[in-house]
Amino acid sequence: MDPEVFAQARLRMDQLTKPPRALGYLEEVALRLAALQGRVKPELGRGAVVVAAADHGVVAEGVSAYPQEVTRQMVLNFLRGGAAINQFALAADCAVYVLDVGVVGELPDHPGLLKRKVRPGTANLAQGPAMTPEEAERALLAGREAARRAIAEGATLLAAGDMGIGNTTAAAALTAALLGLPPEAVVGRGTGVGEEGLRRKRQAVARALARLHPGMGPLEVAAEVGGLELVAIAGIYLEGYEAGLPLVLDGFPVTAGALLAWKMAPGLRDHLFAGHLSREPGHRHQLEALGLRPLLDLDLALGEGTGAVLAMPLLRAAARILHMATFQEAGVSRG
Amino acid sequence: MDPEVFAQARLRMDQLTKPPRALGYLEEVALRLAALQGRVKPELGRGAVVVAAADHGVVAEGVSAYPQEVTRQMVLNFLRGGAAINQFALAADCAVYVLDVGVVGELPDHPGLLKRKVRPGTANLAQGPAMTPEEAERALLAGREAARRAIAEGATLLAAGDMGIGNTTAAAALTAALLGLPPEAVVGRGTGVGEEGLRRKRQAVARALARLHPGMGPLEVAAEVGGLELVAIAGIYLEGYEAGLPLVLDGFPVTAGALLAWKMAPGLRDHLFAGHLSREPGHRHQLEALGLRPLLDLDLALGEGTGAVLAMPLLRAAARILHMATFQEAGVSRG
Repeated sequence: MDPEVFAQARLRMDQLTKPPRALGYLEEVALRLAALQGRVKPELGRGAVVVAAADHGVVAEGVSAYPQEVTRQMVLNFLRGGAAINQFALAADCAVYVLDVGVVGELPDHPGLLKRKVRPGTANLAQGPAMTPEEAERALLAGREAARRAIAEGATLLAAGDMGIGNTTAAAALTAALLGLPPEAVVGRGTGVGEEGLRRKRQAVARALARLHPGMGPLEVAAEVGGLELVAIAGIYLEGYEAGLPLVLDGFPVTAGALLAWKMAPGLRDHLFAGHLSREPGHRHQLEALGLRPLLDLDLALGEGTGAVLAMPLLRAAARILHMATFQEAGVSRG
Repeated sequence: MDPEVFAQARLRMDQLTKPPRALGYLEEVALRLAALQGRVKPELGRGAVVVAAADHGVVAEGVSAYPQEVTRQMVLNFLRGGAAINQFALAADCAVYVLDVGVVGELPDHPGLLKRKVRPGTANLAQGPAMTPEEAERALLAGREAARRAIAEGATLLAAGDMGIGNTTAAAALTAALLGLPPEAVVGRGTGVGEEGLRRKRQAVARALARLHPGMGPLEVAAEVGGLELVAIAGIYLEGYEAGLPLVLDGFPVTAGALLAWKMAPGLRDHLFAGHLSREPGHRHQLEALGLRPLLDLDLALGEGTGAVLAMPLLRAAARILHMATFQEAGVSRG
């Protein structure tokens, strides 16, 4: 983040051939991209999304509308190109990387899959620690490794995605813990659980929160409440941050991972762009805490990184604003 | 619009590997695209935006923050690639066509410019008819011709853009006339006029509306209140509708032109997608009348087709939803 380039870009923005502020929120996005890239005329090329996948012991509490085996089945679907994230990535010039940090069951070797299973699913966060601090550390490093590979292969714009049956429960616990919110504010229907399931989700989150104590660091908190892919997502964003990239957020679980990364490295916030506002109610609280305005608001609630990838073309377009001609360059009269 | 394909696409949508309705509003967009293209797996390729430009005699009333010469200067800027629409089109795989139906002053020959000047600007709509019905007919045909060319050159997705200093006044008059709304509901600040200018805009619109009488057809109404590029925009959309294309709306002036087209051919509504919600307050009334939900809401108020072109990648992504694998194809368990 270069404040001098930000100021130069703002000066240029005021001279571009358009009425002042006519491009609304995208003008702010453009200025931030300029500052991040350290050039008044930013350029974004290919994007990448790293979809982190893992299972959750808390499914034993009946918190999800889908059976646990769906996590592994969906990873196979990602590898074959049949999921929403694949189709959206195709339309958005974005590469898809899949990272297994804790899926229950075997997965095949595949060039698009990084196999770094820390353990086959977390323990049940309603009953005890989801993982050990050492396991959290390994999940974090796995996320960093996957992001490093995506960046080495040309990503100019990085997003994380999530896959894990039960992960909105873990994401709710992590969000509540990191932001000091009550379970009611962050527990929602996820993939479509009913009233009874919703009650069980709140209870599971409340039990996990009751085990926390002041003085725990953010990664210790994450180890206690889970999940493995949420910690990996923190690693993805931390690596992207250190590489200086613009980082795009998806929905509720991904933003829970980003909150963890932010607590570990507060400067990371300057790199974040909110791809969309999810239907999952806790997402709004997460974005407010980060001070981010979503680019899209389309009632999405899928995850996988879909809302982040959908927003990538908007970020590319915003970068182009600063390539417009100025009034002087174009010989246009000012109002 | 093929209702049988719509029903087949809906059936497929329910079987895709995602929770029901997880892709929110984009699912509806996908189904409509399938029905428009008559195939369960729609595909969108290159887009096109036709930017219609003309001047407005009503600027004599002091309704705009910019001088009239800016219309011609901005057309030159479009032809040199320096405007927002050029930059956004570059990022969205969209061709830009410029149509002169009434710009004051000479314009050079250019491969991207269709010169069909009906007259050098409208007459002042606050004082009398903006143009004759014959001139309106010629502007409509010019819009049709420009769209025909864009379609012949490969457009699979069509938008209109507008350029015309003073055109939010004409667009307000046309919208009020076609939807039966009072001037206050549709007059806004346009490119940034002050309080006094806003009062003059309302007055000009009220005077134009006072000359209308029941029994006038939509094109007669448009001839009375203007403007030439708004009528051309109606022609662009009518041609795209007859060619069976999905049509993307921009902001307030473009949607005024689309309202005119809709009044002339009600079936056209099924082809419309609202690219964004503009900051210009009357835009909301236009979209409500058409029953359309905007894809973007980013406080834009520029015109030129910018909000439409920004939404094109979202339409492409929505089309890809129906290319996802079903639960059965992917071997994924249902909830």
